[in-house]
Amino acid sequence: MSQRNLEPLDVGAIREEFPVLQREFDGQQVVYLDNAATTQTPDAVVDAMSDYYRESNANIHRGIHHLSQEASIAYEEAHDRVAEFIGADGREEIVFTKNTTESENLVAYAWGLNELDPGEKIVLTEMEHHASLVTWQQIGERTGADVEYVRVDDDGRLDLDHARELIDDDAAIVSAVHVSNTLGTVNPVAELAELAHEHDALAFVDGAQAVPNRPVDVAEIDADFYAFSGHKMAGPTGIGVLYGKRELLEEMEPFLYGGGMIRKVTFEESTWGDLPWKFEPGTPPIAEAVGLHAAVDWLEEIGMERIQAHEEEIARYAYERLEAEEDVEIYGPEPGPDRGGLVSFNLEGVHAHDLTSIMNDHTIAVRAGDHCTQPLHDRLGVPASTRASFYVYNTREEVDKLVDALEDARQLFA
Amino acid sequence: MSQRNLEPLDVGAIREEFPVLQREFDGQQVVYLDNAATTQTPDAVVDAMSDYYRESNANIHRGIHHLSQEASIAYEEAHDRVAEFIGADGREEIVFTKNTTESENLVAYAWGLNELDPGEKIVLTEMEHHASLVTWQQIGERTGADVEYVRVDDDGRLDLDHARELIDDDAAIVSAVHVSNTLGTVNPVAELAELAHEHDALAFVDGAQAVPNRPVDVAEIDADFYAFSGHKMAGPTGIGVLYGKRELLEEMEPFLYGGGMIRKVTFEESTWGDLPWKFEPGTPPIAEAVGLHAAVDWLEEIGMERIQAHEEEIARYAYERLEAEEDVEIYGPEPGPDRGGLVSFNLEGVHAHDLTSIMNDHTIAVRAGDHCTQPLHDRLGVPASTRASFYVYNTREEVDKLVDALEDARQLFA
Repeated sequence: MSQRNLEPLDVGAIREEFPVLQREFDGQQVVYLDNAATTQTPDAVVDAMSDYYRESNANIHRGIHHLSQEASIAYEEAHDRVAEFIGADGREEIVFTKNTTESENLVAYAWGLNELDPGEKIVLTEMEHHASLVTWQQIGERTGADVEYVRVDDDGRLDLDHARELIDDDAAIVSAVHVSNTLGTVNPVAELAELAHEHDALAFVDGAQAVPNRPVDVAEIDADFYAFSGHKMAGPTGIGVLYGKRELLEEMEPFLYGGGMIRKVTFEESTWGDLPWKFEPGTPPIAEAVGLHAAVDWLEEIGMERIQAHEEEIARYAYERLEAEEDVEIYGPEPGPDRGGLVSFNLEGVHAHDLTSIMNDHTIAVRAGDHCTQPLHDRLGVPASTRASFYVYNTREEVDKLVDALEDARQLFA
Repeated sequence: MSQRNLEPLDVGAIREEFPVLQREFDGQQVVYLDNAATTQTPDAVVDAMSDYYRESNANIHRGIHHLSQEASIAYEEAHDRVAEFIGADGREEIVFTKNTTESENLVAYAWGLNELDPGEKIVLTEMEHHASLVTWQQIGERTGADVEYVRVDDDGRLDLDHARELIDDDAAIVSAVHVSNTLGTVNPVAELAELAHEHDALAFVDGAQAVPNRPVDVAEIDADFYAFSGHKMAGPTGIGVLYGKRELLEEMEPFLYGGGMIRKVTFEESTWGDLPWKFEPGTPPIAEAVGLHAAVDWLEEIGMERIQAHEEEIARYAYERLEAEEDVEIYGPEPGPDRGGLVSFNLEGVHAHDLTSIMNDHTIAVRAGDHCTQPLHDRLGVPASTRASFYVYNTREEVDKLVDALEDARQLFA
């Protein structure tokens, strides 16, 4: 359960848990503002994984020996912990994948490829990440289903009238990002899920940029599927999550095939095991599950509301400071309840890559590019943007450094 | 390059690098003989990953900032190191997956589903792991291709006459385990690949039980695809490898879709990026790649020939000691060049699970079950077996403990 404690964070103490934040290049301490790409990993998480390897490492599947028992319990409990964290109804609804991308592909292949018919609609949004956009394009091509995109308005919000128009009885699935990794927009995913359900369509939510930063309750959203990654929420690389409603996962065909997901195999045919193992063949990311469990513990000890409040405060400050610069264009909505903890922008006359390179001269880590939303950048009319994305350990002083560095870019490129 | 040094290993010194091997349950030190399920992880590998998280953690894809540069280089160099280790022709031929199972599914979906026609043959062996057997069954069902199995003879070897019969011009792919995880058989995979190529079929080799234990050169085998996992070769969970010949990988459609694997995306269509990234969408197992690199370094510092010699010596000793027990049935070939470092067996009148449980009372970790080869166990006429599998840190004394514990099982169950 998230805590209701909304006291400001002790960011100084939190930063001490992240040795990488103490690193210096050319005598300047790292200013890490690339959290939408990956967050840093606190000692508690790194230690949990090291301890696992040094004390309990074994393969799972309920091997009989002590180490396998310990590893199996740790792996299963990680599912329970994640289920509790996002309001799922038990470990059966939590599938561990390798990343959000695999979670998306799992549903696209196991449900989409088997269930979609020509003429049915896959409804996405113009702000989808390539993980969803490219995947559903391909599934659409193979099945004859049509991919349509809910428009993004000039403020960076979804055009809900357009959504109501597109989501009709031909819609089979609606897939949307919870928080845009480019615009920072927090989408009304519960409303989109309701719209989908009114037309017997499924609702898939890409929560990669939401779960790390705010309390998320999949039951409240009434999502059919919800996906996110460990490495964006203070956890390790190599693990992602797919939440799915139990009855849907039970009906679905498996995606990957192999050991640990079967009930009975003969030379002629195979039958499938129980949830969630049906979707987790082979040796899964066991140490990574231990790390993800530790990350959830770490986040909840701070409290997701506090994390959200901190990030939104930093993002609002960044927005306001950048907005005060006349030659800066910011994408996405104004600060408010529907904007998350990141700001993408461009400096007039300077390519995002050049700007980011200047930032790096000051050891400020931001990301330049299309952020895996090329079509959205086409829609914005720019090839790329510079994105500063914040997490629990960032400070106003770091934002000041970012804004100060703009002057260097102007002098070099203007 | 593997070293030609064949001096016996200093197993005592090696064991000190594995804290988990010092663990005790009920005052008895762990005897870890479940290495075919997962090997233990030396400090050097655990530390490499911890150091990565504490010093260089960032997302890759050549972000401009220092940390992303470091992470990108580390991730790319891990590909180079693995390529060198198995004799591949550069990083383009090395795809990082999450495990061997995903490597198998990647080829089955990306090549099999697109290329196989009704009536074509998928030739497997009766000793295939479920990762291959179940996957190709499903692809066969979807494409109309027939799955056929090369027989295993009573000594646990492939019937090569039967292989020559099955692999004809209808064969489209031949997939075989390099070393059987149940029988310990080392299959003549170069000969199988040659047979496949004579009939224009592809050769896939499941090397999960080979790469950890012996020098492997994919060019010498002339495999078209070769798959293995990090966690079975002193490396971390959460990472697997698919080697593929460059021209095949270039021709193949992608498997998973998402960010980092595309060249250009519009709302209408997408085009694919360069090898190997075309097959690695989303945030890949970055820390795990660093760990795998460290594992390869660690293995080669010892020398793969020495590791192989040590394991075969221990396995031969185990085979001989078990064979001397009249009520023990061993599966697979006699010790020799075509038997690897594991022994599966049954004790007359005692179910494998009960025997393994007795072993666990002595803190001996072995694995009971079908080892993800149910059809092979049907062929052997037993529901399950007990498997002792060895690695670089195992000793004859540990084998003695295993054999001594049989007496307890006899007394309890006879």
